[in-house]
Parts: sequence; C-alpha cells; structure tokens
Amino acid sequence: MLKRSPLAPERFPKLPAVPGVRIAGIAAGLKESRRRDLLLAELAPGTTVAGAFTRSACASAPVVWCRKVLPKGKARGVVVDSGNANAFTGNAGDKTVDATARAAAKLLGCPKNEIYIASTGVIGVPVPPNHVARNLPKVAKKLAQRAWHDAARAIMTTDTFAKAAFRTARIGGEQVTLAGITKGSGMIAPDMATNLTFVFTDAKIPASVLQTLLAATVERSFNCITVDGDTSTSDTALLFATGKGARHKPIAAAGDRHLAKFKAALDELMVDLATQVVRDGEGAEKLVTIDISGAASATAARRIGLSIANSPLVKTAIAGGDPNWGRIVMAVGKAGEKADRDKLSIAMGGVQITRAGQRRRYSEKRIARHMAGRQVDIAVDVGVGRGKARIWTCDLTHGYITINADYRT
Amino acid sequence: MLKRSPLAPERFPKLPAVPGVRIAGIAAGLKESRRRDLLLAELAPGTTVAGAFTRSACASAPVVWCRKVLPKGKARGVVVDSGNANAFTGNAGDKTVDATARAAAKLLGCPKNEIYIASTGVIGVPVPPNHVARNLPKVAKKLAQRAWHDAARAIMTTDTFAKAAFRTARIGGEQVTLAGITKGSGMIAPDMATNLTFVFTDAKIPASVLQTLLAATVERSFNCITVDGDTSTSDTALLFATGKGARHKPIAAAGDRHLAKFKAALDELMVDLATQVVRDGEGAEKLVTIDISGAASATAARRIGLSIANSPLVKTAIAGGDPNWGRIVMAVGKAGEKADRDKLSIAMGGVQITRAGQRRRYSEKRIARHMAGRQVDIAVDVGVGRGKARIWTCDLTHGYITINADYRT
Repeated sequence: MLKRSPLAPERFPKLPAVPGVRIAGIAAGLKESRRRDLLLAELAPGTTVAGAFTRSACASAPVVWCRKVLPKGKARGVVVDSGNANAFTGNAGDKTVDATARAAAKLLGCPKNEIYIASTGVIGVPVPPNHVARNLPKVAKKLAQRAWHDAARAIMTTDTFAKAAFRTARIGGEQVTLAGITKGSGMIAPDMATNLTFVFTDAKIPASVLQTLLAATVERSFNCITVDGDTSTSDTALLFATGKGARHKPIAAAGDRHLAKFKAALDELMVDLATQVVRDGEGAEKLVTIDISGAASATAARRIGLSIANSPLVKTAIAGGDPNWGRIVMAVGKAGEKADRDKLSIAMGGVQITRAGQRRRYSEKRIARHMAGRQVDIAVDVGVGRGKARIWTCDLTHGYITINADYRT
Repeated sequence: MLKRSPLAPERFPKLPAVPGVRIAGIAAGLKESRRRDLLLAELAPGTTVAGAFTRSACASAPVVWCRKVLPKGKARGVVVDSGNANAFTGNAGDKTVDATARAAAKLLGCPKNEIYIASTGVIGVPVPPNHVARNLPKVAKKLAQRAWHDAARAIMTTDTFAKAAFRTARIGGEQVTLAGITKGSGMIAPDMATNLTFVFTDAKIPASVLQTLLAATVERSFNCITVDGDTSTSDTALLFATGKGARHKPIAAAGDRHLAKFKAALDELMVDLATQVVRDGEGAEKLVTIDISGAASATAARRIGLSIANSPLVKTAIAGGDPNWGRIVMAVGKAGEKADRDKLSIAMGGVQITRAGQRRRYSEKRIARHMAGRQVDIAVDVGVGRGKARIWTCDLTHGYITINADYRT
C-alpha cells in the first residue's frame, strides 16, 4: 500500500447530490487487494454526454466502445472497473466490453449504446467476458445520490488518495451543480483527457454543445498536466448533463451568453481535478506550476511549458531543491518552438533570475527557500510573441522509480 | 566521484596514432575537482572538417561559433573545456569563445576560423574571457600523437569512464585509420549529434563530402540513442580528415564506390561511440537495444523506437526486471505514428510475447532471466509497413535521481 501523497488535500470534499445521478463504488473482488474496484452510475433518462479520449494508436477496448457510441449523445449508465485496463486484449477485449454494456443496459432498462465503459489497470492481460458483468447486480444495490467517495475510491489504481471536486454555477439565474471524480497518478501526459475523469451536472445542455464545452476545457486542464510524459491507452474524460432539477432556459449553442458562468465553473472544476492528479503524481513531493508567456502562440507556449514539465533533468533538480535554471534553458531550447537565447527571462518563486538572456543578481537563498516548499513556481517569458499557457507537473523522485520498477511483479 | 558504470567496457581501447593529429588533455584547474578539464588537438595543414550540432534554440556560444566557421571547411585546431558549458552566457560568452579562438590560432599559426571549440558543463554561469585562453600554452606542451586517453578524460563531466574507439578501413586498397572520442551521460537525446564527439581520420576527403558522410552516420548512431530525452544546448560532433599518410586516390563525391568500406567503418565507429554513451547513461544498470520493424517508414520506426526508449514507465520496468510489455504497447500507441493494436508483435530477449495483437503462450521465466542480465533486447514489429530502425537506451534507476538531484549543489 502506497503512502498518501504529501501533496494530497486534507480531506475528501463534501460533494452534493447532482439531480439525476446515482452512483456506487464497491469491492467486487476484481483486484487482488480486495479494495474497491467497480463503479456504477445511473443517469436519468434524457442525459446527454460528451467525451474526450486518448490519442493513443493502441487505445483500450473500452475507449474504442465509448468512441463508437458517443455520436448518439445519450447516456443512461457508466461502468468503470479498476485492476485490468482491458487494453491490448484483442477481440476478446471487445467482447468483454460488449457483455458489460449488455448487462448494464438490461439492469438500467436502456439500449446498450447508452452505457459508457472505462477500465484502468494492467495492460495486456485477458479479461473474461463476465469479469465485470456478473458483478453489476451487486454494485447496483448500492446506488445512492451521494456515494461519491466510494465511487472515487473504486476507480483508483496507484492513486494514494480519492479525487473529487464540485462547483455550482448559474445559467440564466438558475443554479446548477457540477460534481466530478478523477483518477490517475502515473502514465499521465497530455494528449486528450488524461486518465479517467467523470463529471456530472444537472444542467440541461444538448450533447453537441456539451462536446464543444468539454473539448475546450480539457485543453486548459487535463491537457496542461504531465507526470511522466507517458500517454495511457485508456485516457477518458466524460461529461454528463442530466437536465434534472434545472429550470434554466434551453441552451442551443456553446456561444450562448447564459453559459459564461457555467463554463467558468467547469474550467475551475477541471483544473481542480487535473491538479489533484498531479498532486498524486507517482512519487511526487512537490507541485510545480509553470507559467509561459511571450511565446509565438498559445500552442507554442504549451509546448514549451510541457518541454520543461517533462524534462527529467528539470524534474530531478526540483526534487533536489536545486535552482538549476540552466536546465530550464535547455528545456526551452529543445521544445522545437521559436525562442531566442538573448530574449529569455526566467523567474522561480517570483525571483527574477534572468532577464532578456542575461543572468541578474538574485538571491539564490530566497529561491532555495522557495524550492524547499511543497509548491514550486516557474515563470518563463520567451520574449518573442504573446502566447501564454499554464502547465502543472510534479518533481521526479526516488519514489517514482520505486513505484514503477515493482508495479506489476 | 561517481562509481564506474557497470556497463563500461573492461578497458580503454589502444588507439593508434592518426597521422596529422596531435592531441593533449590536462587538468588546467577549470574544474573544482582538479580533474582533467582541457583538451587541445593540433591538426595538420589541409585538414578538412564536417560538423553536426544540437537543434536547440538556445545553443551554447561554442556551438554558435562552430556553425559560423564550418562553411570554410578547414580546421587546424580543436579546443574543448569541461566544467562550464558557456551556454546562456549572453554576449560575454561569445567574447570568451572569440578570445579562445584567437589564442589557439596564434599558438598553432592559423586563422582563427580554423579553430573549433566545444564546452560542456553547467549552463548559465558566466565564463571570464581568458578562462580557456590563458591555459592553452600549458596544454600545448603536452601535444602527442597518442594521448587519446588524456584527451578523452579531459572532456568528461558526469561520465564515469573515458570513451573512445577506432577502426581501420581501405579506400581504394590503401589503409586509413579512424579514431574518435566522445563524452556524455545525461542530457542525452537524439537531435543531431549528441553531446561531444570528435573523430579524426588520415583519409583525404573534401569538406563537402565529409559533411555528407557525417550527416548520414549521425542519423544511424548518435540520433538513435537516448538516455533521458533531454537535448543539450551544446551537442557537437566533429569529423576531421587530415589527408596525411593517406595515398589513396582523390575522392570527389560521397557516392564514390571507393568510400564504401570507409563509410562502413565510420558507421561502426560512431555506433561504438554512441553506445558507449548509453552504457554510461546516468544511473544505467542495463543497456537496452530496441529493434523496430514493420513501421510505415524508417522515420516512423525511429520515432516509435524513441517513444519506447524515452518512456519513463518502460525504463523503470526494465530497471525492475519486470517484463511489463503493456508499457511497450502504451509507448507504441503514443508515438504519433501509424500503428494498429491488432497487428502489433512484441518480443523480449528473443521470446515472442505477442503476435498480430494477440498475447501468445510464452515463458515469462525465460524473459525474466533475460531481463536480469546487463543487456535487454526488445523487438517490435508494427505490422503496417517496411520501415526499420535500431535504437539504444538504458534503464531509469534510483542512480539517475541521485545524480541529477544533486549535480549542481
């Protein structure tokens, strides 16, 4: 059992009910550890759905399934199991997913293409067809409006704490609620939604609009975090809108001005969830926030930020509390984006180290003190344009090696 | 002082003299450790030169210099200092390089644009103008035909062993010699020649032809290795041809059939040097060879191979002796190249694990035995084309973290 991350929030948040959502998480015995491993969510009729998935060319069977049913835009159920990713399991893996969908559909009284499925865990181990399906009646008995903690725990793998967040927002004066859970601590890199994230709202939003909102918010949250630069075969983010209990006016387009506060709340929620994943980065001792400005474009800024965030040399320097900003220069240089040695400005913990390519007199002591803390802030101005991005990562420590050299055996 | 890598060759090779080359490596006191830190090579008049450099947008002052003088194609001297990379040092760094070139040119009696300079070490620390120049007379006294070991030691930083190799070849029946030294163990990733490599031959080859030969061989050697995916600001590979002692026919083009054996020897030499760098990868316990076949193109094969080689999850699994081939599937999937879950074949240590997307019955014991050794072989057939590549890397261990969390402090 892994020790709780030192960056974990003090406690699991008190998530409210989201009208139209019932959820459960149980220990079905899928994991050898006997910990919770199966999540079921029941969604009210009329629930719309949006999804974002891994860009891996070797996506898991559940991802292939979700992509196939997503165009319908309707959801009545979500099934998530942890322990086995059902990835690289060939046609047998597809059959297992089909059996799960069929069983859940029967249980919830809906067509099987309204069932969303995700799996997380080891890759390449065959999954028996009934692996999940036979446990559904058991988990269904536990469905409840506020079983968020059980649900969040059921989707954990090497996570050391359960992750959730909620927000409220107003759409045209009417309050709606957003609640989400997420999991992930390794194989985390931005390439679409990272790892498993499920967000539920009682707002009433058409699937096509929901899809636009999700795509935009994922770009600013889960696609801006990285733990180790490795992209999972199973990354899945799903956003469900039940439409229950919301009396707001009908929404027809993503650009609707009544959605402004909802979008802001969704962004906040997603960044909250995404940074919780970074806070649980395998072996993480420090949360690192990297602000890039002055890049040629927003995309360039993100790439430069990720180049820094993914550099093992930068990450180990941070682990060692070493203000080795030369490695940041290196990482900017290798990003493949426009940069100029003589225009680069770097600050750490608010202390300006270089400006326009020249090292300034700065207090190394102040920076060392900043780096000794749990949160490290890096700001880089590339000096060639107006592109901005904020990226989150963690340090690379002995803990990462220990966890990953022994995970499967 | 770091412990010698367990993957190091038993001894430093007995390099022969290369007519037209005299070399020296001394401890000039540039490094606090008092170890060797300054290399000088004197090249006979008429020596031609080819170069390959980092693609970093923040290249070091010496790299900027070498790029500037390379078009002339002539070389009479090489100066390399270790301890300070003279990177991100602004205009002052350029002035230091100029002073070094001027001093070396005076010493060797040649124009300053025939002096090649490289520096390796910490980034961002100002270098006084005379830092290197004032030590040149001292190192010049030690110039000798076979001081290869001193020279190889003088360019080391976190290297745990001195690296060199030699080959002989025939050009039109006449024997020529190639001898090279290299350094590097961290910040190693393929993006042009990786870290510092200097190869000398007594063949007589025009600079333009030499450049074509170097560019081609770097693609198959230094651009196929990675330790941590981090590209240095200082990567430099230089190939010098003195033309002394070689009585072979004049060479006019890179396609000359008389060059076939020379090219083969150069490739062998460069792969020998490049894999020595991987064998000295920071914290390396295992040398990993990754053969990719069946990719859409040779470039796609290289990218897939590097995606596997740079994956922290694959590298930590290898460190743990864990045949977690699911992580190889993940790395193939994230490479951004054409792949198909149902066509992928993976073997480790010659044992076929999957074929055409299906796990086969295989002896996990045999693979575990293979992975317990010092050399790990991975073969991946993507199954979508005919592209091939061979990539070398090392495992990611606690040693890497230890070395890099404490390097500068």
